[in-house]
Amino acid sequence: MKLEQRLSICVLLVLCVTCSANGGKILVWYTEGSHWINMKPVLETLIDRGHQVTVLVPSASMFMNTSEPSRFRYEPFNVSVSMEVIEKFMGEFLHFSMYEMDYMGYLQIYIRFMDLMKRNMQVSLKYLDGVVKSETIMKRLKEEKYDLLLADPVYPGSDLTAEILGIPLVFSLRFSLANNWERLCGQLPAPPSFVPGAMSKLTDNMDFSERVWNFLFYALQDIVLSNIFWRELDRYYSDIKGKPTSACETMSRADIWLMRTYWDFDFPRPFLPNFKFVGGIHCRPAKPLPEDMEEFVQSSGDAGIVVFTLGSFIKNITAEKGNMIASALAQIPQKVVWKYSGQEPETVGTNTRIYSWIPQNDLLGHPKTRAFVTHGGTNGIYEAIYHGVPMVGIPMFADQPDNMVHVKAKGAAVIMDLNIMKTEDLRDAINAVISEKSYKENVMQLSSIYHDRPMSPRDEAVFWIEFTMRNKGAEHLRVQAHELTWYQYHSLDVLVFVLTIVLFLLLLFIKTCSFCFRRCCGRNRKAKTE
Amino acid sequence: MKLEQRLSICVLLVLCVTCSANGGKILVWYTEGSHWINMKPVLETLIDRGHQVTVLVPSASMFMNTSEPSRFRYEPFNVSVSMEVIEKFMGEFLHFSMYEMDYMGYLQIYIRFMDLMKRNMQVSLKYLDGVVKSETIMKRLKEEKYDLLLADPVYPGSDLTAEILGIPLVFSLRFSLANNWERLCGQLPAPPSFVPGAMSKLTDNMDFSERVWNFLFYALQDIVLSNIFWRELDRYYSDIKGKPTSACETMSRADIWLMRTYWDFDFPRPFLPNFKFVGGIHCRPAKPLPEDMEEFVQSSGDAGIVVFTLGSFIKNITAEKGNMIASALAQIPQKVVWKYSGQEPETVGTNTRIYSWIPQNDLLGHPKTRAFVTHGGTNGIYEAIYHGVPMVGIPMFADQPDNMVHVKAKGAAVIMDLNIMKTEDLRDAINAVISEKSYKENVMQLSSIYHDRPMSPRDEAVFWIEFTMRNKGAEHLRVQAHELTWYQYHSLDVLVFVLTIVLFLLLLFIKTCSFCFRRCCGRNRKAKTE
Repeated sequence: MKLEQRLSICVLLVLCVTCSANGGKILVWYTEGSHWINMKPVLETLIDRGHQVTVLVPSASMFMNTSEPSRFRYEPFNVSVSMEVIEKFMGEFLHFSMYEMDYMGYLQIYIRFMDLMKRNMQVSLKYLDGVVKSETIMKRLKEEKYDLLLADPVYPGSDLTAEILGIPLVFSLRFSLANNWERLCGQLPAPPSFVPGAMSKLTDNMDFSERVWNFLFYALQDIVLSNIFWRELDRYYSDIKGKPTSACETMSRADIWLMRTYWDFDFPRPFLPNFKFVGGIHCRPAKPLPEDMEEFVQSSGDAGIVVFTLGSFIKNITAEKGNMIASALAQIPQKVVWKYSGQEPETVGTNTRIYSWIPQNDLLGHPKTRAFVTHGGTNGIYEAIYHGVPMVGIPMFADQPDNMVHVKAKGAAVIMDLNIMKTEDLRDAINAVISEKSYKENVMQLSSIYHDRPMSPRDEAVFWIEFTMRNKGAEHLRVQAHELTWYQYHSLDVLVFVLTIVLFLLLLFIKTCSFCFRRCCGRNRKAKTE
Repeated sequence: MKLEQRLSICVLLVLCVTCSANGGKILVWYTEGSHWINMKPVLETLIDRGHQVTVLVPSASMFMNTSEPSRFRYEPFNVSVSMEVIEKFMGEFLHFSMYEMDYMGYLQIYIRFMDLMKRNMQVSLKYLDGVVKSETIMKRLKEEKYDLLLADPVYPGSDLTAEILGIPLVFSLRFSLANNWERLCGQLPAPPSFVPGAMSKLTDNMDFSERVWNFLFYALQDIVLSNIFWRELDRYYSDIKGKPTSACETMSRADIWLMRTYWDFDFPRPFLPNFKFVGGIHCRPAKPLPEDMEEFVQSSGDAGIVVFTLGSFIKNITAEKGNMIASALAQIPQKVVWKYSGQEPETVGTNTRIYSWIPQNDLLGHPKTRAFVTHGGTNGIYEAIYHGVPMVGIPMFADQPDNMVHVKAKGAAVIMDLNIMKTEDLRDAINAVISEKSYKENVMQLSSIYHDRPMSPRDEAVFWIEFTMRNKGAEHLRVQAHELTWYQYHSLDVLVFVLTIVLFLLLLFIKTCSFCFRRCCGRNRKAKTE
C-alpha cells in the first residue's frame, strides 16, 4: 500500500474521532456546471469533518438544485435573469465555439468573442447584484458570522463579499484565461518562455515561434481582460464600496488558491506558498456498475469496452456527425458505452449501447475499460488519469482543446477534430490508443504520479481550508510582491538607477581620460611647435 | 490534537508495519558541522523504515566519527588534508568573521574573503579527489548498486558522483551564497524586488535603496562565485569526465531539493515543484533533563531560566568579553544555563551555571525556559521556534547574521553585536524579550506555523527521498526552464523580435504617411504655384 493511501486511511480514521469537534461555518459561493461537480466532494468531506456548509444558490441555475436532498444548507437568492436567457446564451456560446469559429476570420472571431464575453460579464454582474445589492441577503450573511468563504472565482464578486463580511477567503480554481487572475492578482510567476498560458494550446516545450506566440498570447489576453473584465468590475466594486476600488487588488486578498491541477496533468511551473495544487480532487475508486450495464460490459470478453461521452453540455450533435461517430464505433472490436441524449443515429452498431446517463467514474475504473473517448473536460480527464485509461479527445470549446494538448503531450491521448474527422480517423484513433502500448504505459505513469503524493488532493484541500479557518487567514504564505508595482516587481526602477550611475561613471571616466589626453598631447604639440 | 500531529502518529503507526518492506540502498555524501547534525535525524528515520544507509566519511573530519556506535554503514575514504590544516583554516575563518572584518575596509574584506574562499575550494576538491579519483572507492560504490545519493551540496561533487554512478540525486540544502546554486542550477525564481539573497541581511520588505543593494548583491555574488567556484569546478568536472562539462548543469540534474527552511523562519517566495521546504527537520519534543540540571532549572522558581550558547564552533572568547557576558547574566532575575568550554569568567553570578555540553533541545522545550541567547545557527533557531522560545541573537559568522535578521523581522528576537555590546545592553535585551509580551506572542505564532502543516518536515523529506527511489528520479517535477539559455528564459530574444517588428511597422506607417502627405501637399503646392 502506498504512503498516500495509508495517509488517507489514517486521516479518515482520525476524522471519525474528531468529526464534530471545532466545526466551522463555511459559506460557499455559487457556481455552475463542472465547477459545481468539482466543488461538491470537498464540501461533503467538510461536512463529514463536522463543519456547517452553506451554499449560495441563485434562483436561475442549470446545475445547482436546492430541491435535491442534500446535506448542505442552502442560501437561495434572487437574480433578475431567467433560465431561458442563460440557456440561450449557453447555446450561442456552444454554437460559436463548435461551428462558427471554423469559417470566421481572426477579426470576426475576436469581435464575436468580445461580444460574448461582455454579455457573460453582464449576466455575472446581475448574479452578483442578487447578493451584494440585496440588503436581506447581506444582513443574513453578516448575522450568520461565517468563518470562511470558499469560492470558485469563475463567478466574480466572492472576494468583494468576503471583504464586506470581514472573513477569510479560499479560492478553488481550475484556471483563468491566460492565467490572468493568478498572475496579476495572485502574483503567480509565469515566465512566458516555459509556462504556456492557459487556453494557448501550447506545452512547456516551445520553439522560438511558439515562445513568441505565448508571449503575445499573455499580452493580448491581458489587454482584452483589462477592457472587458477588470474595467467593468472595478466600476462595480467602486460603486458598492463608495470609493475607487481595484477588483484585482480585492481578489489578491485570497488567502489560499486551491488550483485544480497537479503535475500529472499540468506542466511543472513556478508557484507560491499559498498556491496548492489539488488536481483530481473529485476522483474516487470505482463502485459496482448497475446490473444490466455490468452484464453488457462483461459481454465484451477480452476485447473490453470503450467509454464514449462528449460531456454534460452537449445534448445534440448533427445527424451526420452522429452517424459518422456511430459507424466508427461499430467498426472496433470493443463494446461501446455511449453517453448521448440526442436522436439515436441510424448507423449504431450491435457493439454499441447508448445511455442518457452513465456512471462515468465507475466505468473508467472498471477492469474491462480499454479507452475513453472524451470531449476533454478536466473532470473526465482526471478520472481517466486516476484509473489509468488512455484517451481519444474530441475537444470542442472552453478549456477542452488546451486540456487535450496537455494529455497528448504526456503521450496518453490522441486528439481528433469533430469538424473534419472521418469515420476511419476516429476508428483508427481508438484502435491506436488501445493497441499501441505507449499510450497505456504513459497514462499509467500519470496515474502513478496522481496516486504517489504525500496527501490525497481532497485531504490537502480540506487541510488548507481548515488551516485558514483556524488561523483566520494565511498571512505568512502571502508574498511581499503584492505590495509592489509592476515596475518595482521587475526591478525596472532599480535597473534604470543602476544604469544611470554606470553611464554617469563611464562618462566621467571618458571625460577625464580625454581631458588628460588633451592636456598631455596639447603640451607635446605645443612643445613640438616651439 | 492538530491534523499534522495526527498524521505524524498515523505515519509512525504505519511505518512499524512496513518497516523492512521495500528497503532501498542510500548513499550519503560526506558533510560537516551543523549540516551533519541536521542530516542525521533523516537518516535515522530512513533506517527505521528499513533502508540501508551508507555514509561516505573522509579520513579528516571534525564531526563525522566512524568509531562512534551507530546504525549507519560507513564508507571511509582517504583525503590528502590533515585535521590540523582544517582546524587551522577554520580558526582563520572564524577570526576573520568575528574580529578582522570590523577594522578592515571593503576592498580588504573582499580580498581576504576571496582568498579564504579559494583555499576552501582547494580543500573541498582534495576531499572530492578522495572519492572520484580513488579507483577502489568508485569501484566499490558502483558494485554496491545504490538506489540514491543523498547530499548536502555544501561539499561539491555529489552531483558528479551520482552521474557517474547513474543513480538519482536528492539534495538537502540550507542555502548557497545569494542562492546562487538554487537560482542558476536549480532554476529557482528569485525576483530581487522581494526575495532577499541569502546572506544579504535583508528582509522581503525592502525600500528602494535596499532593493538596489539586493539587486547588486545577487549580481556581485554571481560574479564572485563564477570566478572562484564554478570556474574551478568546471575544470575539475571536465578533467574527470574527459570532455568539457558544466558543473552547474551537472548540479541541475538533482531530482529533489530539500530546502531546510519553511515559512515560519523564511519569507514566502516563489519556488518550483521539486523544491520541498522541510525546515526544522531535526526538531523533536523535549526529553527529561539530567537530574542535577533539572534540579538547577527547578530552583529558578517562577522567574524561569535563560539558555545561553554560542554554538559548537566557538570554544573561546576573550576574557574581557567573557566577563562582560557573565556580568550581564548575573544581573537578570532568571537562572542561566550557559554552554561554554573556555576559561570560566571571574564575574559569573550565583544564578549562572556553566556546562561544557547541554541538551539544548530538551532545555528549550522545558516549561521553565523563558529566553534563548544564541549565536543564530539555523538548528538552534529552529529548536527555539519549535518550542516557542523568544531569542536574543549574538550572530558572529556565516549565515548567523542573516538568520537573526529573519527572526528579528518576525518579531521574535533582539540582535546584539558581540564587538560593541556592553553589559547593560545584553541584560536589557534579555529582559526585553522576556518581559515584553510581543516577543513571546510572535514566537508562539511561528511555532504554530511550524506545527500546523500537512506533514512534519521529517516525514515530508523521507517521503520525497523514497519517492525518488521508487520512481528512479522525479522527472515530472523538473521545469522545462532547464533547457533554456538565460536570454531565452527571460524572453529577451522574443522581446527583441517583437520590438523589431513593431518598429518596422511603425516606420512603414510613418513613411507611408509622409509619402502620402508629400504627394498630397506637393500637388496642392504645385496647384497653388500654377
